[in-house]
Amino acid sequence: MTDQDRSADACAFCAIVQGRADGSTVYEDEHLLAFMDTNPVTPGHLLVVPKQHAAFLRYLPPAHGAGMFTVAQRLAAALLETGLRCEGVNFFLADGAAAGQEVFHVHLHVFPRFAGDGFRVDAEWTDAPRSELDDIAGKIRAGLDAADG
Amino acid sequence: MTDQDRSADACAFCAIVQGRADGSTVYEDEHLLAFMDTNPVTPGHLLVVPKQHAAFLRYLPPAHGAGMFTVAQRLAAALLETGLRCEGVNFFLADGAAAGQEVFHVHLHVFPRFAGDGFRVDAEWTDAPRSELDDIAGKIRAGLDAADG
Repeated sequence: MTDQDRSADACAFCAIVQGRADGSTVYEDEHLLAFMDTNPVTPGHLLVVPKQHAAFLRYLPPAHGAGMFTVAQRLAAALLETGLRCEGVNFFLADGAAAGQEVFHVHLHVFPRFAGDGFRVDAEWTDAPRSELDDIAGKIRAGLDAADG
Repeated sequence: MTDQDRSADACAFCAIVQGRADGSTVYEDEHLLAFMDTNPVTPGHLLVVPKQHAAFLRYLPPAHGAGMFTVAQRLAAALLETGLRCEGVNFFLADGAAAGQEVFHVHLHVFPRFAGDGFRVDAEWTDAPRSELDDIAGKIRAGLDAADG
């Protein structure tokens, strides 16, 4: 199965977009939908998705991505008006199985945070020397040219 | 200290934007800057920031937020061209100390992922009944009206 062939037919989020499956929708416009995550990390956990199937970021029209952030920013503000516990908000997006993506339709998680909510990030943070960062930055600038070109 | 008063003078990211501190820059336009995180979770870990100081999402002009996602999406594509190990990508944003925000200038993390990279999310995922999700969705829809109004 190639990537974009993880296609709309079998896609749990397309089923919600198309009304073939239940979704608790909070926002809809021409290109985007936002609904409750059924496995919330905290009450109020939302997903913002493009209506048009895009398995990965590389298939997502940039305008839809930009719109997803705008909707997420509005939802972050909305969460503060709900009475739900919300002392902060995280946005999280996983692109690719190696990044933790489980549903292969691009989605941006938006969820409330509060003291003691049990959400935690573990990582092997390093303290990178400037020379190494500069070297990698050079590769990424060249990568941007290659990806855009 | 009120929020937006965590001001530009004392802000580590404003110092990079203004050239008062070193940064390994990969992208710059009129409103946005992207540079290497000095404490990467994986090699290639980037931050996308608005040039104009905004301590929290509520102070971020929506156009700058939308642009941040667009730049992040381009950087995700660029990472694949670098030769750095990158089997997937995460975007992560923390708004508020309770969400893990440490530098009070809005920033979107973009970092490569690969098998065994040591990055992990821990949470108390729940299996929420539809009735509860619908109830919360109603509150969020009302919250959107309140926040937009």
